[in-house]
Amino acid sequence: MQDYLDVLTRAVQEWVPEDRPTSQAPSAAELKQILDVSLADEGSDMQSLEDAVKAYLHYNPAVYKSDFYKLLYSGQNKPALLGDWITSLSNATMHTYQVGPVATLMELELIHQWNRLVGFDKDGNQPEGVMVAGGSQANLIGMMLARHHACPDLKSQGPSGRTLVAYVSDQAHYSGQKAANVLGIGTDNLIAVASDDQGRICPVALQQEIDNSLSKGHLPFYIGLTAGTTVTGAYDPVAPCSEIARKHNIWLHIDGAWGGPILFSEQHRHLLADSHLADSFTWDAHKLMNVPITAAVILVKQAGALKSCCSGGGGEYLFHADENADYNLGERSIQCGRRADALKVWLSWKAIGNQGFAAKIDQLQTMKSTCVELINNSDTLEMLAPAAYVNILFRYRPETMTDEAELKALNIGICKAMMNNGGPYVDYAQYKGRYGIRLILANDEVDEAQLAALLELCQQTGRELVDKKSDC
Amino acid sequence: MQDYLDVLTRAVQEWVPEDRPTSQAPSAAELKQILDVSLADEGSDMQSLEDAVKAYLHYNPAVYKSDFYKLLYSGQNKPALLGDWITSLSNATMHTYQVGPVATLMELELIHQWNRLVGFDKDGNQPEGVMVAGGSQANLIGMMLARHHACPDLKSQGPSGRTLVAYVSDQAHYSGQKAANVLGIGTDNLIAVASDDQGRICPVALQQEIDNSLSKGHLPFYIGLTAGTTVTGAYDPVAPCSEIARKHNIWLHIDGAWGGPILFSEQHRHLLADSHLADSFTWDAHKLMNVPITAAVILVKQAGALKSCCSGGGGEYLFHADENADYNLGERSIQCGRRADALKVWLSWKAIGNQGFAAKIDQLQTMKSTCVELINNSDTLEMLAPAAYVNILFRYRPETMTDEAELKALNIGICKAMMNNGGPYVDYAQYKGRYGIRLILANDEVDEAQLAALLELCQQTGRELVDKKSDC
Repeated sequence: MQDYLDVLTRAVQEWVPEDRPTSQAPSAAELKQILDVSLADEGSDMQSLEDAVKAYLHYNPAVYKSDFYKLLYSGQNKPALLGDWITSLSNATMHTYQVGPVATLMELELIHQWNRLVGFDKDGNQPEGVMVAGGSQANLIGMMLARHHACPDLKSQGPSGRTLVAYVSDQAHYSGQKAANVLGIGTDNLIAVASDDQGRICPVALQQEIDNSLSKGHLPFYIGLTAGTTVTGAYDPVAPCSEIARKHNIWLHIDGAWGGPILFSEQHRHLLADSHLADSFTWDAHKLMNVPITAAVILVKQAGALKSCCSGGGGEYLFHADENADYNLGERSIQCGRRADALKVWLSWKAIGNQGFAAKIDQLQTMKSTCVELINNSDTLEMLAPAAYVNILFRYRPETMTDEAELKALNIGICKAMMNNGGPYVDYAQYKGRYGIRLILANDEVDEAQLAALLELCQQTGRELVDKKSDC
Repeated sequence: MQDYLDVLTRAVQEWVPEDRPTSQAPSAAELKQILDVSLADEGSDMQSLEDAVKAYLHYNPAVYKSDFYKLLYSGQNKPALLGDWITSLSNATMHTYQVGPVATLMELELIHQWNRLVGFDKDGNQPEGVMVAGGSQANLIGMMLARHHACPDLKSQGPSGRTLVAYVSDQAHYSGQKAANVLGIGTDNLIAVASDDQGRICPVALQQEIDNSLSKGHLPFYIGLTAGTTVTGAYDPVAPCSEIARKHNIWLHIDGAWGGPILFSEQHRHLLADSHLADSFTWDAHKLMNVPITAAVILVKQAGALKSCCSGGGGEYLFHADENADYNLGERSIQCGRRADALKVWLSWKAIGNQGFAAKIDQLQTMKSTCVELINNSDTLEMLAPAAYVNILFRYRPETMTDEAELKALNIGICKAMMNNGGPYVDYAQYKGRYGIRLILANDEVDEAQLAALLELCQQTGRELVDKKSDC
């Protein structure tokens, strides 16, 4: 196996130099001309494999670099990377204890730690959880738990005839719509509740939507709050929504895929102080904890709910009622074979500790504030939304430009021009109809100088695009 | 990063020696006494991480060894392992082309190759597919495609009021029940159709079940055939079921998670000759292709079906309608963030080639026949089911023992005793009420001498258990 380790070692050396561009992907049409990825009847030699590995790394964006601001992750958590390598090597699978013994104990410890942070271990609760293939699957299971709570017979008998209605804010992640589709709820029965000027769900509007559903004879069954919205990082208010949920016996889920890690920080966890009032919670370790994709979990306040909801029966060839049966996590899951994502999260948590993650959050929040101040002090940049968390949505606006369509095109153009020049790599998004640059601070190596340079580059690129256009 | 590579290198050396036991896991209660997996406020040093890695590998079964017969995979495909390591290093995510450019092109090439093998590229079809987090998710999407085909309005509006009914054989994988639960069909509405004496779905019984559903006013919408059942490896007859499906306009899915790779082999592909008659197909590369878990795909005969079925809308912050939009595989998926499983499959396919996989299938089938012959020639071993594929279900039966409960206990005892002695690592299962040892041949390093020794050990262990019992 040494030859494969050698290829990996050379790949690491080529991958991580600080002077490589953060973005260097041609369009798909161009890349197809450059690369031949066709497969053949005959096998290939080691050199062909290494060439493919090199090309793979060359054209993939350098997500480990601190100017990769495009997605809800950035950086390279090295203990987690080691964990993922070992996971591939040992190839455990997580349905039964016997074929993933240490990973099972690690996953249970992680679930314990996550539940402690969320506060599900309070008041004598016996919380549980299971790791899943991404935050969308965690949110799907959150909605499924809610359905099972409202209609326990549906699992075996199918729809009851009553229309089930779910509620999220108009800023929630699109996995809510996917879940309503997959679960057979119907996307029209997922209500996008109005958000306030901070991008948070409006409890009054939520109550009105529920009343509206009830007046039609529908059954409200799921409220999905967001802790850290995708575009602006807003935190929905948990306490008032929890009161509404309790009043109507509706399951309350929090999608903390992105914003959950705020709970590590003494200083900032007030944004999510009432998380323990929910019934279930989504947390993605592959986002702000920088673990390689995917590493997500669904946490549940009351043990037993997952197996009761997710297990469809069958599988007796696999799940034997032996002495370790309580440790067969597969019976809590909608998956069968499941990659052992626990090890990478466990190793990084072991290496970094609660304090290390808290320091990371605090550092990122400080950098966020610094960046917002720089934007607010600029004549041609403006914030498009509040920035409670580490999402910064802003735009370049020359004094002479007031047309929203022109401003949209200009800011998209800035993002694309910077990407085409190798980086920084940012994305664009809209909030309440206005388009801007979405800057995600997920890599705590970022510093004030780098942020100042980025903002200057945005303005300079914007000026050049305006000049170029006026030349035409 | 060199220190992490060094830990990996040492881990590889400790992991792969041929003399390590295949199984060495204590019970969960014992392992909790041995290992401390607790996490703390403070971070830990590199030595602690390496100790954890060592323990992880030590207690995990050695799935790379040829006497790991327990699950539907065994062995270590080294090009695929390299691919998984690089995947973790580069941390692409597969929702948009821009953040996984080469992986996207590789995934599309794999889908092309898989569709060619299944025969979905015939007759001017434009097949498609998407890689998913496991065969259970692929089968879920197969059933979801069927639902969308039967009830296109359900996606937005929810249940129509008519009871939807799905059909699989009584030998099908338990993911069918999970899918019926998740999708809100109701597990009672998943009919387990009788199988024949070869473990294959009985088309006459299938037609009767459909007629029965229709007489109740129900809507048959999904037939899920199995290519390679979990316990005995049976292949359902595609052509007669396809006629039934066409007659009633029912979606026909084939779960080839385990048995799909037979299509590589000229000599054996007749078992699945009519696969092109289906509408969708599940294939797990992490099973017989020995790629690290997970690497699965859902293949669909007609392009456009996946996006139409799976996309729930939303996600405009992510899916920009730019020039590469056709390459944004995320819109075909029920996931958002998705690990780049394509690279590991692509590298192994590149290294091994179609011919290499064909040779592997042929070799395993030869070993299967050899093993069955040894069992049939033995006085105290008996086959419990036909062995069309590489699953061998047999049992030890001393002449004096005829009671089924005793035989069950004895054969379970043999499996556990061998596991507790470090290996070989086999599992037990039942077929049509009789329990035996399920031997899976997935590692083509296995040879006749090893199989003969295994069968001898089963008999010897069985004799010892019988003697021990009669001593009491």
